[in-house]
Amino acid sequence: MIDLTYVPRDEFERVLSLDVDAARKTALFADLCRVNVLYMVTRAGSGHLGTSFSCLDIVSSLYVNELQDGDVCFSSKGHDAPAFYAVLMALGRIPFDRIHTLRRLDGLPGHPDVSTPSIETNTGSLGMGVSKAKGMLLANRLCGRRGRVFVITGDGELQEGQFWESLPSAANHGLADLTVIVDYNKIQSDTWVSRVSDLGNLDAKLASFGWHVVRVDGHDAAAIAAALHDMAPVTDRPKIVIADTVKGRGVSFMEGTALDPGDRLYRFHSGAPDDEQYVRAATELVDRIDAALASIGSGALQLESSPRPARRVPAQPQKLVAAYSRALVDQARRNPRIVAFDADLALDTGLLPFEAAFPDRFVECGIAEQDMVSQAGGAALKGLLPIVHSFACFLSDRPNEQIFNNATERTKIIYVGSLAGVVPGGPGHSHQAVRDIAVLSAVPGLVLIEPCCEREVELALAYCVDESTDNAYLRLVSVPWEIPFELPREYRLQYGRGVRLAAGGDGVMFAYGPVLVAEAIEAAARLRERHGLSLSVINLPWLNRIDREWFASVVRDTPAIFTLDNHFVDGGQGDMLLRTLAELCLPPRRPRSIVRRFGVAGIPRCGTNDEVLRAHGLDAESLCDVIASALHAQVTA
Amino acid sequence: MIDLTYVPRDEFERVLSLDVDAARKTALFADLCRVNVLYMVTRAGSGHLGTSFSCLDIVSSLYVNELQDGDVCFSSKGHDAPAFYAVLMALGRIPFDRIHTLRRLDGLPGHPDVSTPSIETNTGSLGMGVSKAKGMLLANRLCGRRGRVFVITGDGELQEGQFWESLPSAANHGLADLTVIVDYNKIQSDTWVSRVSDLGNLDAKLASFGWHVVRVDGHDAAAIAAALHDMAPVTDRPKIVIADTVKGRGVSFMEGTALDPGDRLYRFHSGAPDDEQYVRAATELVDRIDAALASIGSGALQLESSPRPARRVPAQPQKLVAAYSRALVDQARRNPRIVAFDADLALDTGLLPFEAAFPDRFVECGIAEQDMVSQAGGAALKGLLPIVHSFACFLSDRPNEQIFNNATERTKIIYVGSLAGVVPGGPGHSHQAVRDIAVLSAVPGLVLIEPCCEREVELALAYCVDESTDNAYLRLVSVPWEIPFELPREYRLQYGRGVRLAAGGDGVMFAYGPVLVAEAIEAAARLRERHGLSLSVINLPWLNRIDREWFASVVRDTPAIFTLDNHFVDGGQGDMLLRTLAELCLPPRRPRSIVRRFGVAGIPRCGTNDEVLRAHGLDAESLCDVIASALHAQVTA
Repeated sequence: MIDLTYVPRDEFERVLSLDVDAARKTALFADLCRVNVLYMVTRAGSGHLGTSFSCLDIVSSLYVNELQDGDVCFSSKGHDAPAFYAVLMALGRIPFDRIHTLRRLDGLPGHPDVSTPSIETNTGSLGMGVSKAKGMLLANRLCGRRGRVFVITGDGELQEGQFWESLPSAANHGLADLTVIVDYNKIQSDTWVSRVSDLGNLDAKLASFGWHVVRVDGHDAAAIAAALHDMAPVTDRPKIVIADTVKGRGVSFMEGTALDPGDRLYRFHSGAPDDEQYVRAATELVDRIDAALASIGSGALQLESSPRPARRVPAQPQKLVAAYSRALVDQARRNPRIVAFDADLALDTGLLPFEAAFPDRFVECGIAEQDMVSQAGGAALKGLLPIVHSFACFLSDRPNEQIFNNATERTKIIYVGSLAGVVPGGPGHSHQAVRDIAVLSAVPGLVLIEPCCEREVELALAYCVDESTDNAYLRLVSVPWEIPFELPREYRLQYGRGVRLAAGGDGVMFAYGPVLVAEAIEAAARLRERHGLSLSVINLPWLNRIDREWFASVVRDTPAIFTLDNHFVDGGQGDMLLRTLAELCLPPRRPRSIVRRFGVAGIPRCGTNDEVLRAHGLDAESLCDVIASALHAQVTA
Repeated sequence: MIDLTYVPRDEFERVLSLDVDAARKTALFADLCRVNVLYMVTRAGSGHLGTSFSCLDIVSSLYVNELQDGDVCFSSKGHDAPAFYAVLMALGRIPFDRIHTLRRLDGLPGHPDVSTPSIETNTGSLGMGVSKAKGMLLANRLCGRRGRVFVITGDGELQEGQFWESLPSAANHGLADLTVIVDYNKIQSDTWVSRVSDLGNLDAKLASFGWHVVRVDGHDAAAIAAALHDMAPVTDRPKIVIADTVKGRGVSFMEGTALDPGDRLYRFHSGAPDDEQYVRAATELVDRIDAALASIGSGALQLESSPRPARRVPAQPQKLVAAYSRALVDQARRNPRIVAFDADLALDTGLLPFEAAFPDRFVECGIAEQDMVSQAGGAALKGLLPIVHSFACFLSDRPNEQIFNNATERTKIIYVGSLAGVVPGGPGHSHQAVRDIAVLSAVPGLVLIEPCCEREVELALAYCVDESTDNAYLRLVSVPWEIPFELPREYRLQYGRGVRLAAGGDGVMFAYGPVLVAEAIEAAARLRERHGLSLSVINLPWLNRIDREWFASVVRDTPAIFTLDNHFVDGGQGDMLLRTLAELCLPPRRPRSIVRRFGVAGIPRCGTNDEVLRAHGLDAESLCDVIASALHAQVTA
């Protein structure tokens, strides 16, 4: 186990009180913040180093030199939250001890949330920043307040339609108090922006929308200050600063410029460094800071440290995305009509092998989900079988109308949403897909399926490609997950039917996906062990289809029914099961049967996976407790 | 009753065989099509004359002079469907007798649908066209087919983010076979584009996205042909033609240029002309055509005619949008925090009085729903109470992620979706909001309410503004509807509770909104009259909230429960009621009780209101029949 080091608050005060010019001081301040970003992300085990490092000179410049009372500053891209936290803690605007709480329950969320002091708006889903800023300026105007709004965007983010949608009215209304700063680091999640969906001549584009555009070196605090100063007299137009930056700036081996232009994959967008990388990065940062301090006659940095937390690594987890990745390539070899669409998540959605095998049949759309889904619609009309990929949260709702539009054309399209469900809990509510079943439930002719293990992934994809006449949405948990069960050897997907994985006469639990089927199995074991209660556990991968006869046979004689949704409790599979139960009008076996849904209620919590499952009562222990009390109450009633 | 006249197929053949130059012939052909568009829209009682007239010279030019085998042409804006139908029928590509079936069941849909011959893609929801075209060209490439794609867009449509999102990859991939033609008629639904959300320098914008841009007079067939000819050698870029047109072109009093620049409202965007307007327009068109024919020595136009169908006009309909409009102004007088956001539907969402009374607190966003919703989010964060308006179909799904994002900020925002439900049936599935309850059901802290009459509109808005701590979505039926019931004099909204409007012991029907509460009341009357069955009818305006105690008291002793959703049958209020019923575990009074949901299944049908309700089994007659058989089966079982 290694120690992780961070810069304490008083060291920031020392740096800020140094008698050097503002630009030098700001650069130093930003590097101190980099040390703390590195600490936070490494400690959390995940986070976005590359984008936090690239924007740190900009964010530091704003907070140290530019912002005045009444001004507002926020990140539209949102995954640079650690950079904002580092700066805000350094300035005493967020309590400093939260530095140890990134991505923990009640700590600093993976993406910005207004529950954190000085965080002005929730982001993480891209493209909303300029719109939010316009609303804030409207409120300022109507309430007679003064104040400017500064919005930091990414460059990959500019592929999102809402960004362009939001530009014209700011120009038409002459919102001179609005300044957008593009952290133009040239690399989006995995690779070069120009490879994904080239932005073209960005200066010309933005100017053509009536904005005042300037371009600066985004790592030069003096240049940033000068640009902001020079723009101040422009009082009839909103302003945009294109700040040329380097992704991963500050740690040489993480810098985008260290990536060969021919390389497909930038490795420091998300995730956390390993021990060796951490030590190398921290050493480089601290050495540079100490050299700078020495050159102005100030002493070396006094760091504090804390051991890197141990992480539970599952021994033999199920990796659904990897299984999907293999199954897709197999299917595509057999079926030349298959084309795959991606929205800048080729690594995370398992598409790299497909891209390598079928480069002509791989369409990288960039962060442009609406465009992607409608492209798939056009391709399907002309004879292809499009398979459309993104994170479940982004795929199901932003292009929701486009998915419906495609459905009304009665073509066949398969949608694959990964990162489904409430875990991983670290990224927070912008990334936790817990509304996708609900938002897709009323699309005609769209079947929703969630497999619980690698084997079921293959079966589900085969069903979608070969058997289904409906459109399909395949919902995939991305977190590798250990499962204490195995599907029966002879198991086959049967439309609307599930499979019993544990038997018991005291009640039945319905679940789907690796996470909640595993928790259900474990809960059943604890219920048996501790309370002598025996519950059936059914894996039901069909989220919006039910074979009523099969269902009636499963629930007819059970005194208690529990549904488990890795989704909001409203609008999930449980709703389908309960409405079917009501429609069946089965006579209950005992006068007081129990029917209860488990699922996410309220806004999904951010934290470790264990913390989040527990917070929403979806872990085995909570399930065991609640079910035991319910059944006990039933018996004693 | 007046006669409506149309140009029969053989007259088009006569014109096309005239020995005159192509441009003159095309202009004549387009005017003949205008006669038929006027016929279709007037006969249907609704449709989009202004936009159909503005694009007819372009569409005629393409179909008469430009398109070759393998080429594809479609409208992205979609509300110009009558223009496409007129052209396609004139050329024998749609059976001519469908001219009498616009907006009728199994006829020509209000917006394009691929079930119609030669209609290439479904549109009506804006901004999808370029994306669809790219998918078609991908399929062409992978299938080794040749062919160009021509897409007609509106100009207001260009406010939609997806349009800008879709441009870069077409340029990056050098899609030279893609040509977009902007029907630049300067007026969006109600008024000047420049007043709503000015497009700025459109030529420069489009060129900055790497497209080849030309500008032509969109009513000059020779100029259009020349532009397309001149662009042909451009083989490395997609092409865009900005075609300057006049909305309503061809009928002088419908022309946008006849509108005074100071006028707020253009009156011929949608709807149908009255008798006097019809006669005046038809006369002008035919006179001009006859003069042109005479000038080239050809005989006058031989028209056919058909009487204008009588329209049932409700005597004392409830007008919910008008009631909302008044209630909003009242609320705003009392509450200075209220600001209203609109997405180019100020007339249809009842906002004109608000705009007049509070011009500073009215924000016209144009067709930019995502931007609008996020602006509201920013405004709410800074202390305002935003009320956000559009058609329910566009408000609930396109900015769905933005609504969720706002909800995670725990601010208070009210969303008001009009044109809710399956009627009016004329516009078709792009405009029939029957998924909004489902797509909003899993937004935390968002209460969904649908009032059934003008009085309940006021109560509902007052609840949302004054009482609710939740965000709220107010769902409004726009069609004026006669209601055979009255709310009790002492009626007040009570959270999660409904009100009994008819009493009966054989079962209970739950409904909401004027349309289905009216149908339920009428069905109950017929059931009593014809079958001696007495059913309760409950108006339950709460779409996703239920007072379980109240509900249990209502359903405890009833042998049959029916839920009526003016929405897809899955994901509507019925699902909430049935899952609650299941959770309550009430002992049924008789061994075979009946629980059944009514709602829209499959893709919503296009037709008159009566046709559409009947087609989905939601009219009183269908309800009466199905319920009578179900109850009869129960009794005899």
